[in-house]
Amino acid sequence: MKNITLKEIAETLGISITTVSKALKNYPDVSPRTRQAVMNLAHQLQYTPNSFAVNLRTQESKTIGLIIPEVVHHFFSSVINGIIAEAEKNGYLVIILQSNESLELEKKQVALLLSKRVDGILMSLSNESNDDEHIREIIHKGIPFVQFDKISKLIHSSKVIINDQLAAMQAVQHLIDNGCKKIAHIRGPVNPQNAIDRFLGYKKALEKNTIPFDSSLVYTCQRVSFEEGYAFAEQIKKEHPDVDGVFVITDLVAVGVLAYFNENQIRVPDDVAVIGFSNWFMSQVITPKLSTVDQPSDEMGTRAFQLLLEQMIARRDQKPFQAQTIELKTAVVQRESTRKKS
Amino acid sequence: MKNITLKEIAETLGISITTVSKALKNYPDVSPRTRQAVMNLAHQLQYTPNSFAVNLRTQESKTIGLIIPEVVHHFFSSVINGIIAEAEKNGYLVIILQSNESLELEKKQVALLLSKRVDGILMSLSNESNDDEHIREIIHKGIPFVQFDKISKLIHSSKVIINDQLAAMQAVQHLIDNGCKKIAHIRGPVNPQNAIDRFLGYKKALEKNTIPFDSSLVYTCQRVSFEEGYAFAEQIKKEHPDVDGVFVITDLVAVGVLAYFNENQIRVPDDVAVIGFSNWFMSQVITPKLSTVDQPSDEMGTRAFQLLLEQMIARRDQKPFQAQTIELKTAVVQRESTRKKS
Repeated sequence: MKNITLKEIAETLGISITTVSKALKNYPDVSPRTRQAVMNLAHQLQYTPNSFAVNLRTQESKTIGLIIPEVVHHFFSSVINGIIAEAEKNGYLVIILQSNESLELEKKQVALLLSKRVDGILMSLSNESNDDEHIREIIHKGIPFVQFDKISKLIHSSKVIINDQLAAMQAVQHLIDNGCKKIAHIRGPVNPQNAIDRFLGYKKALEKNTIPFDSSLVYTCQRVSFEEGYAFAEQIKKEHPDVDGVFVITDLVAVGVLAYFNENQIRVPDDVAVIGFSNWFMSQVITPKLSTVDQPSDEMGTRAFQLLLEQMIARRDQKPFQAQTIELKTAVVQRESTRKKS
Repeated sequence: MKNITLKEIAETLGISITTVSKALKNYPDVSPRTRQAVMNLAHQLQYTPNSFAVNLRTQESKTIGLIIPEVVHHFFSSVINGIIAEAEKNGYLVIILQSNESLELEKKQVALLLSKRVDGILMSLSNESNDDEHIREIIHKGIPFVQFDKISKLIHSSKVIINDQLAAMQAVQHLIDNGCKKIAHIRGPVNPQNAIDRFLGYKKALEKNTIPFDSSLVYTCQRVSFEEGYAFAEQIKKEHPDVDGVFVITDLVAVGVLAYFNENQIRVPDDVAVIGFSNWFMSQVITPKLSTVDQPSDEMGTRAFQLLLEQMIARRDQKPFQAQTIELKTAVVQRESTRKKS
């Protein structure tokens, strides 16, 4: 069945297209009788306004694009949840693209969203991103744009972030307060700003407590996976059997660390304390329950959409817009994997 | 910065819009010199073809809609992953809407996608869905449509499913084969076809093994949550202390069951064996590791998009299309939460 147009309704009723359009919009200069006839026929034919044509007139698509590294990821799926819910409330649809942590794919997706003329773009960078020409193009074209979580500090745009450095410092301080003296760090890949900041927070916490920094205690993830956590835990015990605390880039990797320790009768937290980052759901159901840093993922999505909306409205109304940075609060969540050492 | 139109390029160069359009499309009847001038200016002004206008001509949006109950859900996020990847490969964008298991929201979203004139719709029904008028409208309008996972049997459309009844029978048979004699079932809500089928599979397995069915051993989830699993585990032990096996609608709920048993020194699988459904990632990292039914979620997404694509192509080419049902294979995965009773 094909889509019905205003023209067909007009021809069927022997009136002008303008009259049909006015009738559908409830304009007062159409007689009640004509309006009723148009309404009835439109209903009968299941007329749907052509959104492409509407778009051409308003130059608004009421659609935004979201580019994220991964969907199957507790943190990102919670952010998506926040974004979709807030977009829905405001009458916007969300196109979701996944960069799979690949810079090349990310560039392609930015180009695609630009050609689709979305009203705005939300983005968390892939781990590979070390070049931001494609992002500069979004800004150069004047498309409203908000970065969240994994951001580029060099790009002037609105941002929703946490203070990764401070949060990491607090996590490591928590290990130190519980008696850890030799703390390893399983860090994220080299590019993402948040991996860099968490690493710097680890270093600063050591420094503050006059614990010498030892680069051989730092292990770098490529994929940020469960398997890497498992393998690094084994490596840590081999290379540094006296390590008594591990600060891990994210909960998924920390769960891999716990799996290795559990299977090899290394007691957590008595032999080694472990703290993760992000507060994934599974962290509260594994054994031992994982201490971590809570990061408000759903709120990050909500706030990111709100910032984008402000900018989209400013653009539509041709008003100036000032980029803003929102920093959300984090908190150390103590569970079973960290405890005061006697 | 505003978007550049063909008209502006034409005016700047003092040529017709048609010539500009032809030059950009590399038509042979434009002189190389003119073409070069148009190309240079378009490049300089960062001209992007207006996809709304393109859409109006082709009547294809190259965008599909996906309506699912939840994003923060291991199974659905894996399906989304499969859909986005396959769509990307074929040059389609995916708008994702979340029904939050609400029928009202689901109806609103169908209407929204229809008004956006997406090329096709993929959908897994909300738990509340017990009326399918909104789905009939999609089909009535001739929009390519594929159901997956939670489907309505009454709607004639392509479907990607598993055999829930058979899979549930196999899970319960697995408990029986391991010596369970009194098996409780924590089932899903009353509406979804897959919850009904898993319940029927449970009943059939009992029947096949001449174990009498006892309706007081069936517990019905409303939210399908961790908390419900925890609460039902407590209730089961109170009402039926001799239950020695539990078949649970999905892993998330089963993890709640394990949490209650762990905290109350009820040994799994020695006192009670537990089997879940869906094979969530966390099932392999909790203690004890959860036995479950593996369901190919990523593949479900891939196949659903492929079926939709076939139908979209048939529609574009005005060829007939036959609705198809693809049934994916499942398998019982034995881990620590089930074992032969001595």
